[in-house]
Amino acid sequence: MASPPPYGRVWNFSAGPSVLPVSVLEEVQRDLLNYGGTGMSVMEMSHRSKDYDKIITGAEATLRRVLDIPSNYSVLFMQGGGTGEFAAAYLNLFASKAVREKQRQLGRPLSCDYLVTGTWSKGGMKEVRRLGGHPRVVFDGVGEASYTGVPPVNEWRLGKPEETAFVYYCDNETVHGVELPPDAVVDAVDPSVPVICDMSSNMLSRPINIGRFGAIIAGAQKNMGPAGVTLVIVRRDLLERDDDSSDAVRNLPSVLDWSYFDSTGSMPHTPPTFTIYVCGLVFKWAEEQGIRELERRREARAKLVYDEIDAHPEFFRGRVDRAYRSRMNLVFNLPTPELEAQFLAEAARRNMVQLKGHRSLGGIRVSLYNAMPQEGAETIVAFMREFYANNR
Amino acid sequence: MASPPPYGRVWNFSAGPSVLPVSVLEEVQRDLLNYGGTGMSVMEMSHRSKDYDKIITGAEATLRRVLDIPSNYSVLFMQGGGTGEFAAAYLNLFASKAVREKQRQLGRPLSCDYLVTGTWSKGGMKEVRRLGGHPRVVFDGVGEASYTGVPPVNEWRLGKPEETAFVYYCDNETVHGVELPPDAVVDAVDPSVPVICDMSSNMLSRPINIGRFGAIIAGAQKNMGPAGVTLVIVRRDLLERDDDSSDAVRNLPSVLDWSYFDSTGSMPHTPPTFTIYVCGLVFKWAEEQGIRELERRREARAKLVYDEIDAHPEFFRGRVDRAYRSRMNLVFNLPTPELEAQFLAEAARRNMVQLKGHRSLGGIRVSLYNAMPQEGAETIVAFMREFYANNR
Repeated sequence: MASPPPYGRVWNFSAGPSVLPVSVLEEVQRDLLNYGGTGMSVMEMSHRSKDYDKIITGAEATLRRVLDIPSNYSVLFMQGGGTGEFAAAYLNLFASKAVREKQRQLGRPLSCDYLVTGTWSKGGMKEVRRLGGHPRVVFDGVGEASYTGVPPVNEWRLGKPEETAFVYYCDNETVHGVELPPDAVVDAVDPSVPVICDMSSNMLSRPINIGRFGAIIAGAQKNMGPAGVTLVIVRRDLLERDDDSSDAVRNLPSVLDWSYFDSTGSMPHTPPTFTIYVCGLVFKWAEEQGIRELERRREARAKLVYDEIDAHPEFFRGRVDRAYRSRMNLVFNLPTPELEAQFLAEAARRNMVQLKGHRSLGGIRVSLYNAMPQEGAETIVAFMREFYANNR
Repeated sequence: MASPPPYGRVWNFSAGPSVLPVSVLEEVQRDLLNYGGTGMSVMEMSHRSKDYDKIITGAEATLRRVLDIPSNYSVLFMQGGGTGEFAAAYLNLFASKAVREKQRQLGRPLSCDYLVTGTWSKGGMKEVRRLGGHPRVVFDGVGEASYTGVPPVNEWRLGKPEETAFVYYCDNETVHGVELPPDAVVDAVDPSVPVICDMSSNMLSRPINIGRFGAIIAGAQKNMGPAGVTLVIVRRDLLERDDDSSDAVRNLPSVLDWSYFDSTGSMPHTPPTFTIYVCGLVFKWAEEQGIRELERRREARAKLVYDEIDAHPEFFRGRVDRAYRSRMNLVFNLPTPELEAQFLAEAARRNMVQLKGHRSLGGIRVSLYNAMPQEGAETIVAFMREFYANNR
């Protein structure tokens, strides 16, 4: 049996906000009333102070090292979560010089292409429709709109490159447990078309070929830190504007304006200072582990649980095609809703919590983010085995 | 001599993010790795969990009691700070049924009225222009656009009520140190026109006649908690829409949509969970003090410093008309920039920090928010006296 977590803590399988490294929480706790001899909490520090400047520029520098972010990409810390970026991605791209020039050449509005693999990519597409845009559906699930994987590339209905402002997808769907293999989308898209990717829920869990993306957006509250900060990594040429009085820019509030954040060091207004500080500590932790080691661990944790699922597929009923199974959010059903309720109740009694599937799907969802130790995965697998033995 | 702050802390006169109550920070610290026996940090808690639901609904309930918020007002916790709400106020009002009906009756677009008392009200107006709106300038400073007070009401160029969507102002200007007396604006505006007020920097420092406002917006990072959450208190009838497919709604991203936040309990997406939790603790602290006691203390602290300024007005050079001097941000210059630099350096050596005036004005800014004890005001006044004696 694996040793229990420290401080009377539970095994926290929440899909997000989710478990953070204990060493990061300890450091936050230690410095809460007096950070590094400044005589104040980071919460109480002016965002324009030298002390805070070190924190935010340090966080960016660490992240750049961890993810090997090329120098022609900007790193922005924004607010509004993934949902804010659903709007921002569309509004900023259509306000960019690149897209506006392409549109002038075409002589009519460009489309934007959405790969729909679950709730979050669908949400991104819905926001574009809400804002008056006309996204093209490259695909919407597999077969009858069931989000169990990705159709073969030759069935993707991508627009012509000269008619397409960008291609958008979500790298990992937390609700449906669908994750794309690295580079699956950038390999399929013409290099002239920027690929915009929502990596909210698997960011920092494996290396990324950032140079192949137009922009990566990610809410912090899975692998990066507390909820309330959103990371944007964007190729600088996409930030250029040719006309700041255009209708496209007029639809873009300051708080969603990537160019404005870029030109002000993410401070067109007060940033979520403390949340960025905690993210910086998580980035430092990630650097200490190493991104390849984090990838190795994510594969090892997920394999443990999937092996148990695959050993008894009639009992642990996975939905997702093996090629697209998420390493972050492992979803399955049990034979009956009663067994699922029993599973959750017995797990909770053993200090394993937040395992309930998303309300739209029911069932069980085991989220295994970076900060979940291997012992946590071992503990739930031991429980799954026992539960199977007692209830099959 | 007043006793020094605990934990080796300094006297923190930051204009924001700013000092928080020590007892709140102690509670945050104590519960950081295991909140209330849940076995996890609040940072790690699903926003959909029962434990977190108690935190966010508790925060709202406490705030409603502290400020005596009428039941026909909604309380929203959003992101994007005051700057986000500059856009949101304009976009939501112009998407509302009330404004759209009034506009149909008038047969042409309504205007919106801006009282410009300093940087932040000007920022609110600029954001409306950016978004293609045409705000009317009710006044822009006193005399030659100097932000030292407010012109007499009979000089305000308010629009006709039937032509005006709303009147907007900022209750306290942190940069220029201008604060309006309670009800000064609502008394001057026709009751049929909603007044929208930015109270980011003096919220919770005195009672508010909320029932006289259309909406109050406030970034948290002064009297309410850490940066990263924005409070909106809005009269419910202004949230009604008659046509969700209108162009007005199409310009309104989900993350700025008051109605969407209202209908989802501030959770159209993951809220800044930890920041809201800390705000809830500050609300509880404010309730324990009592809003009238907080008002009494703010007046007492500010009087101490202003009395010293007024004793030597040729040395401590205040800019603002007495009737409009801020109780939150007390700004003054010294006779020379050299003396100002010396003042800041000597103050820092005595553990009084973040006293530098805003970069646009220079000079000294003494911010005295709720969490600044009377001893802090006494300490800086003692220092001012000594500095005057040594350098007059």
